[in-house]
Amino acid sequence: MVPKRVELYDVTLRDGAQGPRVKFSAEDQVRVVRALDDFGVHYIEGGQPGSNPKAADLFARVRDMNLKHAVMAAFGSTRHPNFTAEDDPNIKALLEAQTPVVTIFAKTSLLHVSKVLRVSRDENLRIIEESVAYLKAQGRRVFVDAEHFFDAYKEDSTYALATLEAAWGAGAEVLILCDTNGGCLPFEIHDMTLHVVQRFPDAPIGIHAHNDSGCAVANSLAAVQAGAVHVQGTINGYGERTGNANLVTIVPDLQLKMGVDVVTPEQLTRLTHLSHLVAELANMTPRESDPYVGRDAFTHKGGMHADAVKKHKATYEHIDPALVGNRTHISVSEMSGRSSVLQKAAEFGIELDRDAPETRIVLERVKELESQGYEFEAADASLELLMRKARGEYRPFFTLLGYRVTVESGRNGEPLSEATVKLQLPDGSLMHTVAEGHGPVDALNAALRKALENTYPELIEVKLDDYKVRILDAQAATAAKTRVLIESSDNSDTWDTVGVSDNIIDASYLALLDSIEYKLLKSRGFKA
Amino acid sequence: MVPKRVELYDVTLRDGAQGPRVKFSAEDQVRVVRALDDFGVHYIEGGQPGSNPKAADLFARVRDMNLKHAVMAAFGSTRHPNFTAEDDPNIKALLEAQTPVVTIFAKTSLLHVSKVLRVSRDENLRIIEESVAYLKAQGRRVFVDAEHFFDAYKEDSTYALATLEAAWGAGAEVLILCDTNGGCLPFEIHDMTLHVVQRFPDAPIGIHAHNDSGCAVANSLAAVQAGAVHVQGTINGYGERTGNANLVTIVPDLQLKMGVDVVTPEQLTRLTHLSHLVAELANMTPRESDPYVGRDAFTHKGGMHADAVKKHKATYEHIDPALVGNRTHISVSEMSGRSSVLQKAAEFGIELDRDAPETRIVLERVKELESQGYEFEAADASLELLMRKARGEYRPFFTLLGYRVTVESGRNGEPLSEATVKLQLPDGSLMHTVAEGHGPVDALNAALRKALENTYPELIEVKLDDYKVRILDAQAATAAKTRVLIESSDNSDTWDTVGVSDNIIDASYLALLDSIEYKLLKSRGFKA
Repeated sequence: MVPKRVELYDVTLRDGAQGPRVKFSAEDQVRVVRALDDFGVHYIEGGQPGSNPKAADLFARVRDMNLKHAVMAAFGSTRHPNFTAEDDPNIKALLEAQTPVVTIFAKTSLLHVSKVLRVSRDENLRIIEESVAYLKAQGRRVFVDAEHFFDAYKEDSTYALATLEAAWGAGAEVLILCDTNGGCLPFEIHDMTLHVVQRFPDAPIGIHAHNDSGCAVANSLAAVQAGAVHVQGTINGYGERTGNANLVTIVPDLQLKMGVDVVTPEQLTRLTHLSHLVAELANMTPRESDPYVGRDAFTHKGGMHADAVKKHKATYEHIDPALVGNRTHISVSEMSGRSSVLQKAAEFGIELDRDAPETRIVLERVKELESQGYEFEAADASLELLMRKARGEYRPFFTLLGYRVTVESGRNGEPLSEATVKLQLPDGSLMHTVAEGHGPVDALNAALRKALENTYPELIEVKLDDYKVRILDAQAATAAKTRVLIESSDNSDTWDTVGVSDNIIDASYLALLDSIEYKLLKSRGFKA
Repeated sequence: MVPKRVELYDVTLRDGAQGPRVKFSAEDQVRVVRALDDFGVHYIEGGQPGSNPKAADLFARVRDMNLKHAVMAAFGSTRHPNFTAEDDPNIKALLEAQTPVVTIFAKTSLLHVSKVLRVSRDENLRIIEESVAYLKAQGRRVFVDAEHFFDAYKEDSTYALATLEAAWGAGAEVLILCDTNGGCLPFEIHDMTLHVVQRFPDAPIGIHAHNDSGCAVANSLAAVQAGAVHVQGTINGYGERTGNANLVTIVPDLQLKMGVDVVTPEQLTRLTHLSHLVAELANMTPRESDPYVGRDAFTHKGGMHADAVKKHKATYEHIDPALVGNRTHISVSEMSGRSSVLQKAAEFGIELDRDAPETRIVLERVKELESQGYEFEAADASLELLMRKARGEYRPFFTLLGYRVTVESGRNGEPLSEATVKLQLPDGSLMHTVAEGHGPVDALNAALRKALENTYPELIEVKLDDYKVRILDAQAATAAKTRVLIESSDNSDTWDTVGVSDNIIDASYLALLDSIEYKLLKSRGFKA
């Protein structure tokens, strides 16, 4: 029953944009459309022009874009009970979007028909028929989202099927079964979809799943297993509540595991990029644990695993990460030995010889720092700096003579933070600076910059993007060791550094220093 | 084929703790065990004593804990090819853990037997048999994790089944089928599990899934659908790479949707709390989009949905959120509902009347603090203090006039931390103290104690057990808001307090103050 081929229908710009914290600007929307087209998505739903003026605007912009592959779709509802299809303002807006495809959602559940729509069962069928027929007559390809279909089927399968019949009879091109509340499980979806496929042997059947039971991906696959040929979802699973079905997981599952033809192998290698780009545009942090595309999806730590992965890739990786544009990461952690340090060096473009004395120095230094609570898993720049220092590829850019940080309760309850820094530059000159900040670390950062930016103007473009604090053995409470991670960036790169101390200010200071030193070394092509 | 009852086997402290960025202190591990026991988990895997001394330590501590419900399990491998079971140091460590259950993983895939273990197919079967038999003979209940079982089955089903036979024949109590690489899809898991269930009709069969294909939850359900009666997973799906099967999703799926008996309905209402508590202890941010327990799982935005939800709850919610201890959020800004605040007050033994003015004061104060980044999920004492203050059950024990904290680089690289505190006692006397510490917060704590312990000697018995820092909106980097959680204890109780500020010292100071005030109020039987 598994089809040879499945079409993707992306709803990132409609359902996805409804997700909490997801925000696309008008410019971002156009970039999402471009990226989806490049990836090989078949249909792109641009939004609901009847209720969202931004969507109408997007459709106008996309008309001139010359998409290579994707077809645009506008989304709306069946006609309102009080209007004819022709007079319904929402349907007018759908036509004005001038998209080849129009997708309308129809009520299939008697509960919704009576409680939400408040019309009779027959009137709802008429509404569906007339809406589809009118849009068809206007030259549109019409897809019908059967809202709450699976709940409706459980409630009254005869009526639910009658709504599909109404849509199909009136000329709908695809019938999409929606698990709108996300409450269904895969075997239910499979059985109900199978029944629909058998009942409408000529109709292309689609699936639209939500993740409220944690099964949106599996539900989509189950529908395809039962014969569905059209899959709706969003990039990264963005969407209301727990999100929509995640196309980024579904596509490789279908293509690499179920042998279904979805995009070309070349397009599939853009999956990781697509996921990260859309996250970036949506203003969301990419989830490191996401299947296939997450930073951790092919990360191995622990001596045993890392060793086994090297011996035989297939032993601990379910697919070759290159197929989806990702790669294997061996994380350097306390459990890993020489081979992962060497591999990491290679990643940095540093040639470390297995038996060279400098390799032993690096290993010993890493081990010593790790025993102090350092962790280089998320601090590549600190590790690279350490390696380059061990190889003598470094000269000090300044010598720190001392710092002082003060926090004191201010008069109005707002505490005041001040930092002073004293350091010597290579030409022998002394810099002694003071700065305030939002908190002690911010003040320290400001004082360091003040002391260095004249001599090293490239530091002006460095931004601190992220600051994380982890208390190690927290049982020592306020006397505990602290690990600070800082992410910095300039116009071209992003790098992460780490500092550990039983003093939170000092840990932050160490991570700040590594960030500055890394930038200065990087600006010199890593040549001291 | 769906069983009436399923047992939960939690691996949060083993697989979960291997997850990137997940870290449990020894104290946290004990709290996780306690929370899992309260929730009704049947088995708790404490770790791998043979390779991790922290795990051995945990087993020793848990022996005195008097668990109500859960049974502890130690994890390790079958004997090493070069040792007899009796002489194998890993097996010795398993026995020394003194847990009722020992779980060992066995190789089932010929690829792994030849490439990783490097023994013959028959030798591997002998290793399994002897390891199980020896542990049984030592009085242990033995569970066997059939590592890579599904891949092994695809590779050579006869051999994969022979490894199960070896374990079962030697006395294993549960056979757990592991999708170690997480590469399988639900229908495959279902069919292979069904075959095993039919082949071993008397053996309880378990499932251990990973999320590399985005199907760990669905795979676990598919195995139960095929007759598995034992489900392994972690709280919040923590684990290597893309994580393990998420028990927090699986339990309500099984119980509310598949009619399987897992925990009591009362225990199920603790699900949201369990998820958030473990996240907090692991120092991970709770994922807002998580099914059932996420902050957004029952959040409705957009006029239409929110309206429909009001009209008829079931129209847009797949379950009643109260069943899992969560609740409906209608708008983004509307946070702490009245009923949960009232429920919390009842928990503290505070009678808050639904419509009393003080209840409104509490609600407004909570809302205001939450909008600043406060979270009371893991800070009951701060919430209780807030309520008692609103009800006038509090008089100030001292008035703080000011504090100053200084950190400066010392001569030998060790930074020096000093804090001064100035406060007024109720009798009008002024205290002005200074103290040093391991870091600025420790110094501040010491100075506060010095100023107060003479007047309030009950503070001498207060210990700070735990100190956690979370950076909110980390993109603001070193200028970001900081939330500090402090756990304190005396001879009879443990309590948690919270402070939020864009200054990490100030946030710590606020949490410290709450801890001290709570203790002083508690010592007076909460009567000011």
